[in-house]
Amino acid sequence: MATIVLCLMAQTTTRRCLLAHLKGLARAGESHSPLVSAHSQSFTSLPRTRWSRGSSVRFMSQGTTGKTAAGGSRRGALALTGAAAVTAAVAGVLANANHFQRAEMATKVSPAVVKEEEGDILERCREFMSPPVTDIAVLQERKGDMSTRMEMLIMETQADFCKALQEVDGGTFKVDRWHRKEGGGGISCVMQDGKVFEKAGVNVSVVFGHLTEEAAKQMRSRGKVLKGKDGKLPFCAMGVSSVIHPKNPHIPTVHFNYRYFEIEEEDGSKQWWFGGGTDLTPVYINEEDALHFHNTLKEACDKHHSQYYPDFKKWCDRYFYIRHRGETRGIGGIFFDDLDSPNQEEAFSFVKSCARTVVPCYLPIVNKHLNDPFTEEEKDWQQVRRGRYVEFNLVYDRGVKFGLATPGSRIESILMSLPLTARWEYMHEPAKGTREAKMLEVLQNPKEWV
Amino acid sequence: MATIVLCLMAQTTTRRCLLAHLKGLARAGESHSPLVSAHSQSFTSLPRTRWSRGSSVRFMSQGTTGKTAAGGSRRGALALTGAAAVTAAVAGVLANANHFQRAEMATKVSPAVVKEEEGDILERCREFMSPPVTDIAVLQERKGDMSTRMEMLIMETQADFCKALQEVDGGTFKVDRWHRKEGGGGISCVMQDGKVFEKAGVNVSVVFGHLTEEAAKQMRSRGKVLKGKDGKLPFCAMGVSSVIHPKNPHIPTVHFNYRYFEIEEEDGSKQWWFGGGTDLTPVYINEEDALHFHNTLKEACDKHHSQYYPDFKKWCDRYFYIRHRGETRGIGGIFFDDLDSPNQEEAFSFVKSCARTVVPCYLPIVNKHLNDPFTEEEKDWQQVRRGRYVEFNLVYDRGVKFGLATPGSRIESILMSLPLTARWEYMHEPAKGTREAKMLEVLQNPKEWV
Repeated sequence: MATIVLCLMAQTTTRRCLLAHLKGLARAGESHSPLVSAHSQSFTSLPRTRWSRGSSVRFMSQGTTGKTAAGGSRRGALALTGAAAVTAAVAGVLANANHFQRAEMATKVSPAVVKEEEGDILERCREFMSPPVTDIAVLQERKGDMSTRMEMLIMETQADFCKALQEVDGGTFKVDRWHRKEGGGGISCVMQDGKVFEKAGVNVSVVFGHLTEEAAKQMRSRGKVLKGKDGKLPFCAMGVSSVIHPKNPHIPTVHFNYRYFEIEEEDGSKQWWFGGGTDLTPVYINEEDALHFHNTLKEACDKHHSQYYPDFKKWCDRYFYIRHRGETRGIGGIFFDDLDSPNQEEAFSFVKSCARTVVPCYLPIVNKHLNDPFTEEEKDWQQVRRGRYVEFNLVYDRGVKFGLATPGSRIESILMSLPLTARWEYMHEPAKGTREAKMLEVLQNPKEWV
Repeated sequence: MATIVLCLMAQTTTRRCLLAHLKGLARAGESHSPLVSAHSQSFTSLPRTRWSRGSSVRFMSQGTTGKTAAGGSRRGALALTGAAAVTAAVAGVLANANHFQRAEMATKVSPAVVKEEEGDILERCREFMSPPVTDIAVLQERKGDMSTRMEMLIMETQADFCKALQEVDGGTFKVDRWHRKEGGGGISCVMQDGKVFEKAGVNVSVVFGHLTEEAAKQMRSRGKVLKGKDGKLPFCAMGVSSVIHPKNPHIPTVHFNYRYFEIEEEDGSKQWWFGGGTDLTPVYINEEDALHFHNTLKEACDKHHSQYYPDFKKWCDRYFYIRHRGETRGIGGIFFDDLDSPNQEEAFSFVKSCARTVVPCYLPIVNKHLNDPFTEEEKDWQQVRRGRYVEFNLVYDRGVKFGLATPGSRIESILMSLPLTARWEYMHEPAKGTREAKMLEVLQNPKEWV
């Protein structure tokens, strides 16, 4: 590991520079791979915490466009650097740029910019699973910054989803708060061996750092050369990610991830982009579930651009592909990266719609199959599919690969996406005409659901 | 995938050249990753098959040194090429050259060259789990070639080990014979959900090809530039590999792999080298088992060179290291690669000693714990350790990574090393002082057993 100059700016105004080994880093191109230091602690929610699924917190439109002015008013600044880290972090973006269509549909986006609530930050934080990573005082001070608004969104998404799952399961999430010594940290919520859920993980991470110019160049793939102050560029990455593995083989596994990156140039201007997606991995095909899931996503997408759903659905099928098996991981959903158009406000509004669609996408399916009876054979097939899930996550998922390769990562948060149990049967081949064979057929030939 | 010129020479004397996509390839630096095409078939052993564990087949010393003359008398020659394939195949060798000590102890090797039996090839083949990959007539014709002698050794090793396991389990191995359309093939023997073994796989593969000079250069790391005829170099790779996952958590998992590479230069001279190793992955530390296992390996090594065991033991601990966990996969054994000294005969003799040590290393441990009672908690801990096994194999094992990345590989043979079942518990941390904690302590700080 290369020794690199790490500049830490605390959330106060003092600036300290130090030499350090890279010990953590930024969120990777995808997914359930938080960026994490080893220091974690169990945490109990703030007093008065209650489930606020119904309280749709909204943000005021700030009317910002493309680049936003940064400088002194920015988030108390930030933290980590290291070419390797950032290179890997953004490998996903590069790969997507090469292989997939890009999310450049600026001119067509609908003007539906949702107003935000002017709710008090402190009040909203009381609904979270844990205090946010950033000091509440800092969030309050920088209420209008996109980094604050996104951090509030991912914390709310985590809380809403965890509480919806707790309600249906009867169990409680274990909440681990951890911090990176290089800057930032995260909150991992895990429920294991519940009544309904075999393993449910919902993770938030917010990390800061500095990139070298070389790393920044690799980070952004649109031919832009970024100029840093003394060769370094402040950088921040944050996201919420989740994988839910239910016990009942008739309830599908769901995964989602929504993330935001910011990088600041010498002149104070910012590059920023969003990424994310939600996808479903059933054990058996249920047309009605698939239609509900995809329709709900499509509705959320259509509010913003008519091409979002068809484009991001294809991108999803391509990303979650287990190449050595010639099959997708599940029946897809949406996946996008590098989204920085038509403007920051509208891009954020789209991400917000997606994040708020997670509960309505998934919970009705969970509730519908809650009491479905199942056989031992169905459970076995679920376990075989879980094995494929492990294969995808360990072999292909860029976030996981990047996280595992990074010293100082919080491994438990990265691998929380793995199921509690999985199975590998030699030469497992479902008999023709069975429901298992029908599932495989769909995985080998992704369908257009809506 | 690059389209490459593939020259196939059948085992007859006809030579045909054709353009083809690379669809398979040579054995990777490590391990349980056979190289494989998709065409497989179930197979029943030759008539008169019986377990020949006691019949120690030996080879006549040929007294060959360093390079051997090749040319017309070589194995029917042949087969696959493709820089990517070979580059990956030998990435292990390169990595080892950079990170580990090398197996260059030529001057010190003992002169103990074991005589081989002059047994009839056909008779010996009757003991195998399947006819060998190479036509028996070809093997008979080229009885003295190292490729023939190694193919006989790996087939014998497979048969001896499978039969020893069948005897103890009472079950029967499923034998799948498969061939690569680009040349060569393999024999996969798998027993699943037996009385003693949850999953037991023993695989042989024998593949042939041509390398480009560039690929050959990357293949050999000792600064040698290899010159091919018209830029291409005939190449062959073969090996036996196995992973055994027992049901009882008091019986450890074992893995071994012994392999041989040959590459032919323009002037007909050959580069060749051996690689391999045997290592143990217990669920609980049993000092007596560890001593037996390591002592048996040490004895086999000491017959050839006093540095082999200490050097290859260290190499093993370094190779089977789960970096993101900071722990080794198991309690080690031996691991070596790129072994081409002091001469071919002695190197082969050493590999033969190792291969013949597999049964005496492992079977006494199996038999000793066959009827050990175990608790549900012990079984759970076994499943957690199986999860780590999966992590190593999917994230780090060069053979698996290479195999999965190669179109046309026989995935079922590559992934036969995965356990039938595995488990990932969030934040699993054995309590201090428990036997689980003691196991972890050893994995985090590899011991010198003998």
